[in-house]
Amino acid sequence: MRLAVLGAGAVGRATANLAAEYGHTVTALADSSGAVVDPDGVNVAAALAHKDDTGTVGDADPADALTAEYDALVEATPTTLGDAQPGFDHVRAALELDRHVVLANKGPVAERYDDLRELAARSAGELRFEATVAGAIPVLATVEGVGAERVNAVRGVLNGTANFVLSRMSADGLGYEHVLAEAQDLGVAEADPSFDVDGTDAALKCAILANVLNDGGYALADVDVEGIADFPGSALEVAAEDGQAVRLVGEVTADGVARVGPRLVPANDALAVSGTENIVQLDTSHAGRLNLSGAGAGGPETATAVLADVGRLD
Amino acid sequence: MRLAVLGAGAVGRATANLAAEYGHTVTALADSSGAVVDPDGVNVAAALAHKDDTGTVGDADPADALTAEYDALVEATPTTLGDAQPGFDHVRAALELDRHVVLANKGPVAERYDDLRELAARSAGELRFEATVAGAIPVLATVEGVGAERVNAVRGVLNGTANFVLSRMSADGLGYEHVLAEAQDLGVAEADPSFDVDGTDAALKCAILANVLNDGGYALADVDVEGIADFPGSALEVAAEDGQAVRLVGEVTADGVARVGPRLVPANDALAVSGTENIVQLDTSHAGRLNLSGAGAGGPETATAVLADVGRLD
Repeated sequence: MRLAVLGAGAVGRATANLAAEYGHTVTALADSSGAVVDPDGVNVAAALAHKDDTGTVGDADPADALTAEYDALVEATPTTLGDAQPGFDHVRAALELDRHVVLANKGPVAERYDDLRELAARSAGELRFEATVAGAIPVLATVEGVGAERVNAVRGVLNGTANFVLSRMSADGLGYEHVLAEAQDLGVAEADPSFDVDGTDAALKCAILANVLNDGGYALADVDVEGIADFPGSALEVAAEDGQAVRLVGEVTADGVARVGPRLVPANDALAVSGTENIVQLDTSHAGRLNLSGAGAGGPETATAVLADVGRLD
Repeated sequence: MRLAVLGAGAVGRATANLAAEYGHTVTALADSSGAVVDPDGVNVAAALAHKDDTGTVGDADPADALTAEYDALVEATPTTLGDAQPGFDHVRAALELDRHVVLANKGPVAERYDDLRELAARSAGELRFEATVAGAIPVLATVEGVGAERVNAVRGVLNGTANFVLSRMSADGLGYEHVLAEAQDLGVAEADPSFDVDGTDAALKCAILANVLNDGGYALADVDVEGIADFPGSALEVAAEDGQAVRLVGEVTADGVARVGPRLVPANDALAVSGTENIVQLDTSHAGRLNLSGAGAGGPETATAVLADVGRLD
């Protein structure tokens, strides 16, 4: 399949790098300031080296990537809130051209799901977004297999940074600021970690899951969110003494619950994953509970979900 | 989709019962001694009540189900070894009629994979078999998404009966015979439990996984198997003192390992599932390790995997 990859951050880069291994051709690659387009296949390594040298993948207009020859658009630009721009307009442009769209960008799916579905309904292109929820973990493919109407609830640890901080504070009795600084040194937390530790990232994933389970109607503002920044370290100690752990848990149900917050879970429970691992539990009508865990972030890990979606396109 | 369901054991019954909820019509339902066929849709409840009363679902010839009007055959007759008959011939008949086939019966996929693939290659029908490995857990769909060539190893607890026995022996210091009798009382173990406790069932699943990872070439005889019947209870105690648990683990790799046997795993490891739960770990090239756990057996649970496969047919 011919792919146009928008965004050359960790996920966009990894997707472009792995595309050939999956049998696909990258015919366009763009970042916010430039693009490279070639219907016979972009030289991905050269374009990414060009970006390392100059700050952009190429000299073409980024808008040219959207009108290039491709079968599927991979939208991997940074997640934005509210109107989810410019990601939303990228998706619209591709669907209006009857191309498929695979999103790694959470913004449009979390914030403008109903608009996306309307565009997809009018397009011959298909819309998929496995990579927007829990990186490499096949959450949405599993919901699709079971049937969203037979998934009663989804619960999970959906942010690796917050989980790293909580599990490290808990295991070693260290303070929040100390562990956060360590996480930043390790590259697990960003310089501005608020998106992760205030629960916004997990809440975006909950909005997406709520949309999938309830056939739309949710945005970030519809998710109750409590982060971990103000969570008292002393509460972790009390929990540990009682055989419990604290995790930032996102929960979505088919009857309208959508919330993120620190929760007590038994220390030996499936939800008590450590470090940057994510886990998602699906409560189903006929198959009991399914647990799916693995890498919830990372370039190649998330690109694996993107390329799995590409493989599912008709 | 119109389904012909062969086999009216737990999985066949549940598949037939749930088909309408999934939007499908059962046009034929057969057990080993009779069948009921109706192109407008079989009365499933009546047929299963008939079986409860008389021992068979209906008065038609079971062979009539294979030539009925249907889009997909669900092969859910009992697993047989060696030539995997009569399941194999059922699959052949459907594929030769260019119908799709979804298997819950492990025999043909474990024992005659290469023959099946040859039949499928000559058919317009598609062949799927998610339900043959670990019940409700979406193992094969996940391998398909990642790409079998990017799955380096699969490891798992693949038999709920053996796991129930081992975890109960371990947790409560009870002897093998005692726990096995309890499992039989609970319906977790069959009257003849050898298929489960000698590792044959887990080994069949390993043969299937080895076929998927290595593009064929495996049968039950190619899997190294050691069961739990002779496993000394004293070893469980020694392991527990050391923070370890013993689990019957199946392992398959892309470079030819295929084996089942009791293994020491850390007591807090993902593999140390309790009771009848199953877990499967996939080691991938680019996405690290994925863990999938849930119900590895049961009628509605396994039927969920069958019907997910039906939903994936083109």
